[in-house]
Amino acid sequence: MSEKKINGAGLRGQSAGETSLCTVGKSGSGLTYCGYDVSDLADNASFEEVAYLLFNGELPNVAELAEYKAELFAMRDIPQALKEVLKLIPKDTHPMDVMRTGCSFLGNVEPEVDFSEQRKAANRLLSAFPAIMCYWYRFSHEGVEIDCTSDESSLGGHFLRLLKGESPSAQHERVMDVSLILYAEHEFNASTFTARVCASTLSDMFSCVTGAIGTLRGPLHGGANEAAMDMIQKFTSPADAKEQMAGMLERKEKIMGFGHAIYRTSDPRNDIIKAWSEKLAKENGDTSLYDISVACEEFMWDTKKLFCNADFFHASTYNYMGIPTKLFTPIFVCSRLTGWAAHVMEQRSNNRIIRPSADYIGSDPRKVTPIAQR
Amino acid sequence: MSEKKINGAGLRGQSAGETSLCTVGKSGSGLTYCGYDVSDLADNASFEEVAYLLFNGELPNVAELAEYKAELFAMRDIPQALKEVLKLIPKDTHPMDVMRTGCSFLGNVEPEVDFSEQRKAANRLLSAFPAIMCYWYRFSHEGVEIDCTSDESSLGGHFLRLLKGESPSAQHERVMDVSLILYAEHEFNASTFTARVCASTLSDMFSCVTGAIGTLRGPLHGGANEAAMDMIQKFTSPADAKEQMAGMLERKEKIMGFGHAIYRTSDPRNDIIKAWSEKLAKENGDTSLYDISVACEEFMWDTKKLFCNADFFHASTYNYMGIPTKLFTPIFVCSRLTGWAAHVMEQRSNNRIIRPSADYIGSDPRKVTPIAQR
Ligand SMILES: CC(C)(COP(=O)(O)OP(=O)(O)OC[C@H]1O[C@@H](n2cnc3c(N)ncnc32)[C@H](O)[C@@H]1OP(=O)(O)O)[C@@H](O)C(=O)NCCC(=O)NCCS
Ligand SMILES: CC(C)(COP(=O)(O)OP(=O)(O)OC[C@H]1O[C@@H](n2cnc3c(N)ncnc32)[C@H](O)[C@@H]1OP(=O)(O)O)[C@@H](O)C(=O)NCCC(=O)NCCS
Repeated sequence: MSEKKINGAGLRGQSAGETSLCTVGKSGSGLTYCGYDVSDLADNASFEEVAYLLFNGELPNVAELAEYKAELFAMRDIPQALKEVLKLIPKDTHPMDVMRTGCSFLGNVEPEVDFSEQRKAANRLLSAFPAIMCYWYRFSHEGVEIDCTSDESSLGGHFLRLLKGESPSAQHERVMDVSLILYAEHEFNASTFTARVCASTLSDMFSCVTGAIGTLRGPLHGGANEAAMDMIQKFTSPADAKEQMAGMLERKEKIMGFGHAIYRTSDPRNDIIKAWSEKLAKENGDTSLYDISVACEEFMWDTKKLFCNADFFHASTYNYMGIPTKLFTPIFVCSRLTGWAAHVMEQRSNNRIIRPSADYIGSDPRKVTPIAQR
Repeated sequence: MSEKKINGAGLRGQSAGETSLCTVGKSGSGLTYCGYDVSDLADNASFEEVAYLLFNGELPNVAELAEYKAELFAMRDIPQALKEVLKLIPKDTHPMDVMRTGCSFLGNVEPEVDFSEQRKAANRLLSAFPAIMCYWYRFSHEGVEIDCTSDESSLGGHFLRLLKGESPSAQHERVMDVSLILYAEHEFNASTFTARVCASTLSDMFSCVTGAIGTLRGPLHGGANEAAMDMIQKFTSPADAKEQMAGMLERKEKIMGFGHAIYRTSDPRNDIIKAWSEKLAKENGDTSLYDISVACEEFMWDTKKLFCNADFFHASTYNYMGIPTKLFTPIFVCSRLTGWAAHVMEQRSNNRIIRPSADYIGSDPRKVTPIAQR
């Protein structure tokens, strides 16, 4: 195998197409959805408004939002056949694999028959993902067959209700809403790019999203929030965190939740989720997980000039909300689905099959030797 | 939406990485696997030898091949839970959606726990795909719960046996073998590229292959063989074919099974599969489907300088073998799995996350208006 080729490897910095959905790392705040700064949206909009924005290009007014939320509300339950499939998936399965199969199977029983149904398919997945995740989780881990509907008005609240069986506090509902906004869209990241490559063959929405889930699963991408949690949970104090991280860097281990393919000095989502982590820590009384996280942040910046990406303070935030670590990346799916689907629609609106070339580094031409003589 | 940007759109002609697996459209015959011309392999090797070549870089000797085939032979059956899932998938589901769910679910019950299991996972899928396809097909269409094992020695023969319930003729087994060889690998085509993008986040083999299946499903990619069949079946004669195709071109419709992102004047796989189509046509006695296909080929070349790609004569070939049209693309999956898995292994061996950039064409920065004022 040849040397790792950094310039151009991973298509870094190469344009793979056009988008009107998002800017990452451009002048200004660094992250905008359809022109809106992500922190402005996190302060002044709900996740459903952001989903509407990504699918329509404009924020909804009061009536449009009410109609959209009613549409989503009506689609929260999942078909019985899908529940049967989820019951067949073992408890120790990676929850991202459950999301992948759940999405794929929903596309078997409720296919997107043609592109005129693309918005319906996207909204269906948006409404159904909390049920897919929680129905499997609570059946396999608690033996409960949950009701997949709830009267919670927001998708974030609905998810927390299905997960815990009780209505979340207003604060937890709001944090979940903000988290879903922060994760919603991020230009040509690997999972979204997967969705666009799939869309470029004119495949269906469920195929595009299923592929994106599989890509998000990887620890270099969505899997980082879980990996960060596993790490910080092992640290006993801020001092211990710094000591152990020094060892990890020495052993050339990657520290999950740090660094970014595009941002160079900070991730604009970090400040927002970090502030919520701090708030929840204080409310909780035991601030050690937050304190340890801050120590990690300081240490990585001081030693490597590496900064927290969106995932790092999500770990402590979700933990303070009592969310099991293994569901962290599936929550990311519930949110990023909006970005994926919006990119699929955009790719379809101006499509050419995405088919790059490769540099050949293999064997010279040769002739097949008959097997008896090999 | 802006004008279609042809230069660079779809990453055409841009290198997205290195490979030692394949050349497409390079000097010489145009398609090589690990240095071997595809026509040499189609004449002098079996599909299992090609799978071994792609996974190991070298063709097997007699003992290695025997061991490899025994390993594949032992893994042909699928778990009961997967059979239950397949039974829950409706008859009218797109068979590629069945393959996607079947692959994903197999990854739920038999996960690739770490990369040391990558070869096992790939071989498992290779052995299991014919059963996934045929178990669902025959249960949903004929109400039969088939035995998923057979004593056919080749995978191609095994597939035909599961599909029809009887041992195929030596000729049909050989044609299937050649077809699987022709479809096995094709550099950075859209589905393989999907698998590599997924692999680049360090996700698991089942996620990579599930995503690739979803991408292959699209009519601009693997779906073309089915679409070609649907088209030629509507033509009543060679003259009718030419007349109707003229109308299609006038209406700016794409003719499936023609053209290619890389090849400019011919697809090296076409001669091989076309020769088999002719042979099967003569054997059958009714050569009309073949004659119509030849008329299509002539017409497209004469009017548009467009040539048949691998998919076009696959349509008539599979039809002469009595294979239902809806299974054409799933057969492609059974074969291309080898290329996908080989590329996943190659990507992992020298990885950087695949994360391109995008050209922003959207709204200028703007401020969120409070919803009450929108
Ligand atoms: C996000 C990420 C995949 C970007 O990858 P990339 O664009 O290829 O970044 P690079 O590999 O060019 O990083 C530059 C250098 O910093 C190092 N680096 C980057 N992130 C690092 C991390 N989290 N821990 C330790 N070192 C890191 C790289 O190893 C590389 O060093 P090298 O030049 O000696 O090989 C990478 O930062 C990473 O793996 N982070 C951890 C996983 C994560 O949190 N993912 C979520 C992203 S939102
Ligand atoms: C394979 C394919 C997707 C390659 O796409 P591509 O690299 O983007 O090719 P281009 O779009 O640049 O083709 C060049 C021109 O030929 C036309 N063309 C290409 N294939 C055509 C076809 N099968 N029928 C009609 N016109 C075709 C294109 O429309 C384009 O014309 P334009 O410049 O007026 O828009 C394309 O040829 C196609 O759609 N073929 C039919 C589907 C198929 O058989 N796929 C299987 C591939 S193995």
